[in-house]
Amino acid sequence: MRIVVLCGGVGAARFLDGLVRSVDDPTEVTAICNVSDDLQWHGLHVSPDIDTILYTLAGLEGEFGWGLAGDTHVALEELRTLGEDEWFTIGDRDLATHIRRNELLRAGATLAEATAALATARGLACRLLPVTNDPHPTVVVTEDGELEFQEYFVHRRAQDPVLELRFPGAEAARPAPGVLDAIAEAELILFAPSNPFVSIDPLFAVPGVRSAVQSSTAQRIAVSPIIGGAAVKGPAADMLRSLGHEVSALGVARLYEGSIDTFILDEADRALVPAVEALGLRTVVLDSMMRDRPGRARVASEVLAAVTP
Amino acid sequence: MRIVVLCGGVGAARFLDGLVRSVDDPTEVTAICNVSDDLQWHGLHVSPDIDTILYTLAGLEGEFGWGLAGDTHVALEELRTLGEDEWFTIGDRDLATHIRRNELLRAGATLAEATAALATARGLACRLLPVTNDPHPTVVVTEDGELEFQEYFVHRRAQDPVLELRFPGAEAARPAPGVLDAIAEAELILFAPSNPFVSIDPLFAVPGVRSAVQSSTAQRIAVSPIIGGAAVKGPAADMLRSLGHEVSALGVARLYEGSIDTFILDEADRALVPAVEALGLRTVVLDSMMRDRPGRARVASEVLAAVTP
Repeated sequence: MRIVVLCGGVGAARFLDGLVRSVDDPTEVTAICNVSDDLQWHGLHVSPDIDTILYTLAGLEGEFGWGLAGDTHVALEELRTLGEDEWFTIGDRDLATHIRRNELLRAGATLAEATAALATARGLACRLLPVTNDPHPTVVVTEDGELEFQEYFVHRRAQDPVLELRFPGAEAARPAPGVLDAIAEAELILFAPSNPFVSIDPLFAVPGVRSAVQSSTAQRIAVSPIIGGAAVKGPAADMLRSLGHEVSALGVARLYEGSIDTFILDEADRALVPAVEALGLRTVVLDSMMRDRPGRARVASEVLAAVTP
Repeated sequence: MRIVVLCGGVGAARFLDGLVRSVDDPTEVTAICNVSDDLQWHGLHVSPDIDTILYTLAGLEGEFGWGLAGDTHVALEELRTLGEDEWFTIGDRDLATHIRRNELLRAGATLAEATAALATARGLACRLLPVTNDPHPTVVVTEDGELEFQEYFVHRRAQDPVLELRFPGAEAARPAPGVLDAIAEAELILFAPSNPFVSIDPLFAVPGVRSAVQSSTAQRIAVSPIIGGAAVKGPAADMLRSLGHEVSALGVARLYEGSIDTFILDEADRALVPAVEALGLRTVVLDSMMRDRPGRARVASEVLAAVTP
């Protein structure tokens, strides 16, 4: 079964890790990954969501889902010695990824080509595609003005109420080669448990992606990133609130209306089933919390079991 | 007294370190540094001779004169994990220098501007100038063909007999801003104890530099990098031999004839004094071996004492 997974950050990486260990043929899985939180770190192109997937699928991810477990920070500390204000943490082992990506990009590779090389080097079983090779940043509008995404997310610890999200590069961004084909050929499209505003929306903001999903004949299943009215990780609940949506799985389901057929809720949100079904969506309720590595495969298997014959 | 020091690698860095601690005003010292062994390391511009000076003058240099003492190699090991063949050792702390330089260069700085920023960050007391901002590599001709300098020097451990040295970028290279002025304004020009073929020659290969030194009215003093027929460090003796020169301080003095007034020999080479003086050079004999950090200042002081009133 050809599967496309629409991916953002840590939740997506964990879900994808479970998925590739739950399917018969992981080479039939294509992860289409958000790149709108990419940043230039001292001139090196860093793709946090891609890297989280690379590290998580290799079983190397750090405690909080990003970076590499047990990494050291010698280079970062030395940059501080050189007078640099370092608020974005890059470990020494992590640096190898960014150095190699930078080298490939400078030699003329696209981001997709560089990503494929890194995925091969890490032994990834599935295909990993950035949604676009083009610059496509997320701009976060706050009461203090427009912020770059990582400025909002890491430097200011996602504390600012988000008034609006803008994707100024979206119109000029083209889907990376393979993205639209993968969606068109998919028999199953999964929305990973990712932030709808800063993971899934920027995928859809790339011209052609949303319409490809909406016109697909594949089964389209979204896993709620909100459980019991809270985000498992990250600022999704705060964004639902500040952007005027209901802070619940139902709020997410409404955002995905028109793009999905099935919405997966956690058992904690069973009471929301009638409201979600009133949107015309099929619902499946399961224990969707991925507490550990086996839990990721369990959740992925139960999501696959929700596919109708 | 305005002093220019023509610099190559480790010997030059040690001599310069002694010098800046021996003069009244180190801001009057300008080090003009070879960049012909610069390399692109995974897309990052690395300037080994500049870095050796930065680290040595900051008292941070590694045991063998390059890199940083006690550095770790986590990023390098991870690049190996990614399948890269790593033969050029870059430490994690060292990486901060290359990341910062790369960032500055990509933002449009010249190599001289990036070097100045790094020198300021390291608290260097003297001025440090790359001889040129332009690409100006050394090509080493061996029996196996042409080799990039670091390929010859590090990867093949300087084992190949050197048949010829070429500087294919030299004609198009322009002296970095300040280089010719520093030479023109100098009251003393010192040739650090560096390899004449791959440190001093590439400085002179930049149009205008040799003639500026040769037409200078400054006292021009060279410190022999060869003691007792052997190089203190590096392949200078092997190169003298394979390039058809006498393997001795006299062989070096002949190479510098026309560009210097005074040649400094080690006590071990006292017997060469008549032959060097026969070239029309004044000689000074001293214990020129820099065995430790105090020894660098002692040698520099004795060289300064050789300046005629």
